[in-house]
Amino acid sequence: MTSKSSFKRVVLYARQHRANIGVSETLQRLPAFLQGLGLEVMADADTAKLFPLSLPVLDKKNLTADDLMIVVGGDGSLLSAAQIAVSSQTPVIGINRGRLGFLTDILPSDIEAQLTSIVKGQWQEETRFLLETSLHDKDNPAVLFKGKALNDIVLTRGQNTHLIEFDVYVNQELVSHYRCDGLIVSTPTGSTAYALSAGGPIMHPELNAMVIVPMFSHSLSSRPLVIDGDAEIKINLSDHHDNPLDISCDGHESHPVLNSQQLVIRKHPSHIRLLHPTNYRYYDTLRSKLGWEAKHQG
Amino acid sequence: MTSKSSFKRVVLYARQHRANIGVSETLQRLPAFLQGLGLEVMADADTAKLFPLSLPVLDKKNLTADDLMIVVGGDGSLLSAAQIAVSSQTPVIGINRGRLGFLTDILPSDIEAQLTSIVKGQWQEETRFLLETSLHDKDNPAVLFKGKALNDIVLTRGQNTHLIEFDVYVNQELVSHYRCDGLIVSTPTGSTAYALSAGGPIMHPELNAMVIVPMFSHSLSSRPLVIDGDAEIKINLSDHHDNPLDISCDGHESHPVLNSQQLVIRKHPSHIRLLHPTNYRYYDTLRSKLGWEAKHQG
Amino acid sequence: MTSKSSFKRVVLYARQHRANIGVSETLQRLPAFLQGLGLEVMADADTAKLFPLSLPVLDKKNLTADDLMIVVGGDGSLLSAAQIAVSSQTPVIGINRGRLGFLTDILPSDIEAQLTSIVKGQWQEETRFLLETSLHDKDNPAVLFKGKALNDIVLTRGQNTHLIEFDVYVNQELVSHYRCDGLIVSTPTGSTAYALSAGGPIMHPELNAMVIVPMFSHSLSSRPLVIDGDAEIKINLSDHHDNPLDISCDGHESHPVLNSQQLVIRKHPSHIRLLHPTNYRYYDTLRSKLGWEAKHQG
Amino acid sequence: MTSKSSFKRVVLYARQHRANIGVSETLQRLPAFLQGLGLEVMADADTAKLFPLSLPVLDKKNLTADDLMIVVGGDGSLLSAAQIAVSSQTPVIGINRGRLGFLTDILPSDIEAQLTSIVKGQWQEETRFLLETSLHDKDNPAVLFKGKALNDIVLTRGQNTHLIEFDVYVNQELVSHYRCDGLIVSTPTGSTAYALSAGGPIMHPELNAMVIVPMFSHSLSSRPLVIDGDAEIKINLSDHHDNPLDISCDGHESHPVLNSQQLVIRKHPSHIRLLHPTNYRYYDTLRSKLGWEAKHQG
Repeated sequence: MTSKSSFKRVVLYARQHRANIGVSETLQRLPAFLQGLGLEVMADADTAKLFPLSLPVLDKKNLTADDLMIVVGGDGSLLSAAQIAVSSQTPVIGINRGRLGFLTDILPSDIEAQLTSIVKGQWQEETRFLLETSLHDKDNPAVLFKGKALNDIVLTRGQNTHLIEFDVYVNQELVSHYRCDGLIVSTPTGSTAYALSAGGPIMHPELNAMVIVPMFSHSLSSRPLVIDGDAEIKINLSDHHDNPLDISCDGHESHPVLNSQQLVIRKHPSHIRLLHPTNYRYYDTLRSKLGWEAKHQG
Repeated sequence: MTSKSSFKRVVLYARQHRANIGVSETLQRLPAFLQGLGLEVMADADTAKLFPLSLPVLDKKNLTADDLMIVVGGDGSLLSAAQIAVSSQTPVIGINRGRLGFLTDILPSDIEAQLTSIVKGQWQEETRFLLETSLHDKDNPAVLFKGKALNDIVLTRGQNTHLIEFDVYVNQELVSHYRCDGLIVSTPTGSTAYALSAGGPIMHPELNAMVIVPMFSHSLSSRPLVIDGDAEIKINLSDHHDNPLDISCDGHESHPVLNSQQLVIRKHPSHIRLLHPTNYRYYDTLRSKLGWEAKHQG
Repeated sequence: MTSKSSFKRVVLYARQHRANIGVSETLQRLPAFLQGLGLEVMADADTAKLFPLSLPVLDKKNLTADDLMIVVGGDGSLLSAAQIAVSSQTPVIGINRGRLGFLTDILPSDIEAQLTSIVKGQWQEETRFLLETSLHDKDNPAVLFKGKALNDIVLTRGQNTHLIEFDVYVNQELVSHYRCDGLIVSTPTGSTAYALSAGGPIMHPELNAMVIVPMFSHSLSSRPLVIDGDAEIKINLSDHHDNPLDISCDGHESHPVLNSQQLVIRKHPSHIRLLHPTNYRYYDTLRSKLGWEAKHQG
Repeated sequence: MTSKSSFKRVVLYARQHRANIGVSETLQRLPAFLQGLGLEVMADADTAKLFPLSLPVLDKKNLTADDLMIVVGGDGSLLSAAQIAVSSQTPVIGINRGRLGFLTDILPSDIEAQLTSIVKGQWQEETRFLLETSLHDKDNPAVLFKGKALNDIVLTRGQNTHLIEFDVYVNQELVSHYRCDGLIVSTPTGSTAYALSAGGPIMHPELNAMVIVPMFSHSLSSRPLVIDGDAEIKINLSDHHDNPLDISCDGHESHPVLNSQQLVIRKHPSHIRLLHPTNYRYYDTLRSKLGWEAKHQG
């Protein structure tokens, strides 16, 4: 969690979103500033299609672990960037155009000061693990779909109008048969996102654990279950659903799941490298985002 | 989790409780049966005072890691036995006189068969960690009270009629100021006990984690927080409580806490060795105790 | 809630469902039994299409308040029957083929004894109110869709992958802007169904109230809100959803809702007449269905 | 809810509390201002003992329904004032020295403007019902303790270290046997106070209902139960508690409850008259106090 080397090349990343004026403005302003710090500045290929930037484009295949990826936007944009950066082990830092995010912790007013420190090597690095899910037929191990997520993998009803039913196994042992609206499997990173709305606990980001949260379970004694981060989760659908269920990764990469299929969820082999300013404190962000009190007589 | 050596000496442990007829009957029946298996059978010193057993008494100072402690009663009795067995590293197994317990998993109907297997070396061993709390003045590190718990350490209002207030620090960092009825810090073992009633998640017993659960927090955004099992928790009381607060360990060893004092909670240096029959499965117990469904088409 | 007149005509009602063997068997057995009690026995028109019954068919237009509708199936079947019976004010009683239901409280083993009493006039009558929802363009009061529900009216995301957003007004006053997965508006009857899974309270069936339950609200301080049964709820969608939202009544009659539209939910002008055996007690059903304890020293 | 007659006499009410500088300052400032409006200003007898006011003292026996009681403080002070004002049917209005309260809705900055309007007859009146509890031996109806509450009546463990157990009856019918930490019975007024922290729903203040909220119930399927405001609740303790339980009214008037005793809770025969400024809206207060969003495109 201490400072490391400085950077030579920076890649800008942003996604289109509803109110992107601030994102666009920041994207326009950053290149000159970063070039002034002696950095080579490039645009992510998808970002270059969305925003008119006078920058050379870097294909994601050419990203390296020595680059710095700067994400401009909210936590959703950073989740999206993580899908790319995890393969190349490129460190990522987020500039939040709106309110403080859980993952994007540079505020607009602090951009210049904090980026200056960071490119000079003053930062904390956190490694956050991702989950991956794979789908296959119950009687055939050939993988039909694969996805990864920094926050959560969510199984939902799809077009089914009734409760869905499935069995959950952890490390080959049956946990429970569930009748519910769906299931969230979340990393510590995702524990402050969708899983929290569904009644899951907050898990410190350095914990090697994941949480299984049933959604609106028919059984009133269903509860979130925290298991080892290296456990393997298998989900077997019951055989009566009229329509496919739906699996999604970080709210994207949605894919249908049939009665005859099985889902496997486990830790992804690679992690994401998340950078923070040196004054970043996890619990400070938590209090700020959740409106917790800080008054104390310590 | 596989079988080990056989035992030579067994110590019987029980506590007085409301409806102890079954406990007493089992305690009377066990010695002859165990002696028939070639074991030396002794009575725990406190147990011998509560129940008229024609057995030699073993002082807890003479317990060893080669003995087997058999607890007759419910989970509460096993929590109590753990206070003794943790020092001597004596393995413990529980016979539940009533319904299945989370910790005492031999049913009355299975006593002979399962104990026969166990004393012959057919068992699974789980190590479960305990928490310890120490109390001292804010300006003086001298320890005023110390307690340990296999399930949970709970801070409550004592005689105060209003909300209590305190700051919680994890590894020296402020987590939050709380205004609430109290705070539960629970091990994975305790996560299916009091913490569960208070909205905490279930944590798999092998997880190296603890959960902090605020009780009836005035802030509606307070949530259970799962942190590393090796973290250090400090609780600083606010200075205006009219009466002492109250700290308790596994529902016992209650002690007053003054405004001028600080509580420290961390993992206890020793663990408890909990034995199970070879057919024990954690999730089976969970489903059975919580009424979860097991139907599956796996 | 006391006994009234006897019945002359009975209408049998059932729906197709997954494991309908028991339903079909009961439907076959009932006519001879009921005719033996001197009753005219007819089949509901839709029921006659699903099950081969040698019975005259009664169109729902010819149902009267003097008939008795006997529903064979679970609570879902009774919800469906209510859609018909509410118009004709026909009293309804449910025979549950499986476990006890909240609404269908004659058990298979008690059919003959309890139906004999009921057709002779020994029954309790409960009136339960329904909700109705109507959909119209924000700038045009013409009704585009109308539905009614005995349990609940539920607004969900439809095909939207992100949180949905809308404003809720009660009696013309803004309650809150919600960002969530959806909203449940439930009657007391529905308070033990979907709303309960979503964290809503149980409401006694005679209470003139409804409950608004946000689903997985982004705000951690959102809570179920119980309001007067005669209040009018208006829901105005935000204008950015990419896809239509979805409104459903008792899990059926699903209909798309566009950004430019407004939903109104209020009490339906008619109620359903629900009959129970004379030994029916609401709290007994509650304890039985939810697994609450009954031990007492009263 | 519209304006009525003007007032001639005002009684000031306040309680000692931790940080009372603001309260005292407001109490000093009010008399001259109110006298300037042509009102007779008196001090409540208990208030006069706590604060040095140069005002004639009015014994609570001489309060009338034509007076206006002005409470300076938070919601707790208004709860306390209600104990007096309910007998004389004196209308009450609250000035909140700190943040907005649920019950005390005049902010310090608005005191002069809003009180001027109110004494001239520009106000909304709400009647809020209270609960009363009475305690007697199970075999003897003689009342041993009686208390009333605008928010809630709460049964707790007292000095018992274990779960407490009791049966709850509503209108003579057994609801459930509970094993838990306690029970909250709350009015709609109290539904945003302690009951909310314990998982109860928010109930609109005009609803004729109360909610029964079990505290940390051992059964995971226990849920808050909303019943008719005119129902009668009886609580029978189990016979094994080692120490008395404790009953309290609005956090005060605590009284021991023995195993041999029974509690009865029902609506108090009188209500409290609560005044609001004409621009008061219940849902506005709710949003403000709970941090709900108000953004809308209505």
